[in-house]
Amino acid sequence: MTGRLFIVGLGPSDERFWTHEAQEALALAQDIIGYTPYIERLTLRDDQIKHPSDNRVELARAEDGLVKAASGRVVAIVSGGDPGIFAMAAAVFEAIEFGNPDWRNIDITVIPGISAMQAAAARLGAPLGHDFCVISLSDNLKPWRLIEQRLEHAARGDFVIALYNPASKARPNRIDDAFSLLRNILPSDTHVVLAKSIGRKNEELILTNLSSVDGSRVDMTTLVIIGSRATRRLSRGAKEDWLYTPRGSK
Amino acid sequence: MTGRLFIVGLGPSDERFWTHEAQEALALAQDIIGYTPYIERLTLRDDQIKHPSDNRVELARAEDGLVKAASGRVVAIVSGGDPGIFAMAAAVFEAIEFGNPDWRNIDITVIPGISAMQAAAARLGAPLGHDFCVISLSDNLKPWRLIEQRLEHAARGDFVIALYNPASKARPNRIDDAFSLLRNILPSDTHVVLAKSIGRKNEELILTNLSSVDGSRVDMTTLVIIGSRATRRLSRGAKEDWLYTPRGSK
Repeated sequence: MTGRLFIVGLGPSDERFWTHEAQEALALAQDIIGYTPYIERLTLRDDQIKHPSDNRVELARAEDGLVKAASGRVVAIVSGGDPGIFAMAAAVFEAIEFGNPDWRNIDITVIPGISAMQAAAARLGAPLGHDFCVISLSDNLKPWRLIEQRLEHAARGDFVIALYNPASKARPNRIDDAFSLLRNILPSDTHVVLAKSIGRKNEELILTNLSSVDGSRVDMTTLVIIGSRATRRLSRGAKEDWLYTPRGSK
Repeated sequence: MTGRLFIVGLGPSDERFWTHEAQEALALAQDIIGYTPYIERLTLRDDQIKHPSDNRVELARAEDGLVKAASGRVVAIVSGGDPGIFAMAAAVFEAIEFGNPDWRNIDITVIPGISAMQAAAARLGAPLGHDFCVISLSDNLKPWRLIEQRLEHAARGDFVIALYNPASKARPNRIDDAFSLLRNILPSDTHVVLAKSIGRKNEELILTNLSSVDGSRVDMTTLVIIGSRATRRLSRGAKEDWLYTPRGSK
């Protein structure tokens, strides 16, 4: 008897970002595993079992899903954003690599979702409209020196840069270190956006630039976008400015 | 009288990738504008008007949508994938910047979608599970030298790399040039995936490495993913291998 494991992306906030296949997987699942706030948001049937857990236990959550699926259950591990982008999918395959060999026989389906950078970009215009890099500033699992190297290459390559996990209680100053590093490479008028709680009621967009950006405004809900030299800001009177990166470069 | 303009992402293939907000925007639209194959796939009501156009006329398509919305119509410009990632959203804001100043007053909503790299990554496991760069190989609108510089920085920064537009009839050898450049920097056993026609009936995944990859297998429907040094391939007997990039680096 073999179950199934869906790793489902729910997008950055509410159901408007759900895809049809995400909804179908949730309807099929007997067990739904995930970070407590994501799980609590879901409306499920009485026969479906919720297994909420803490944010920091990704690997334990992955193993829990694999054990249940291997026992014959239909399991959904839910993830904010896209499970394939700084989220649960990598944790599941890491658990498989170093776990029970039988887990390689489980029928696993990864269901992509709208990632935070996409929802933030859509609210702003089209800042990711051309070549870009995506970097997690978390140094929980990688050395800070590697993050610095990637920031340097991203800036010298004139990529638009999307920064995930730019702040945490344990590392409140990392984003300031990142901005300092980037100021040594990029023009001071490089566009910077702090996109906070995107898609939620308390959503906030701060359009600024590299010389003026205030790292203390960055929190765990913030996605940071740094423009390339080609990124343009369009003013439109009383309404919020748009930010976009043209399809080409001169 | 002011209309509205939705720039709607439909994902890489069929309706399973549609989000709720994409579907709602399509239901509201009076005029639907887009590349002919995307438009033909849509089932619309009799009162909705389709405006199919060729792939190469992005700016003209954007202007058409803006003119219609400015005249009071509710317009959807549809895009495969995510309109914010190498797609129609940047073309619309480019048209606005250099077009009729009144267009800045149009109520514009960008609706993100699942981009090709996300659907391909989901089919493979989690290759985009850690820091990555996204590069278009098209030199229609930017100099090839800039593309080379970005490839170099992406490789030296040890990013996973997703390549869009890796081939066209006009530039059949660009992908070979890109692989040659990368071979000078990255180990020969670097994982490479050619993900062809993802989500469609003729979908094909080719898992190979940098020394063996055959550029002649790359066509316009192909999304290329190049692993970082951390990317892992998991074998599982008769079934397709998985590819994933761990959340951390040692």
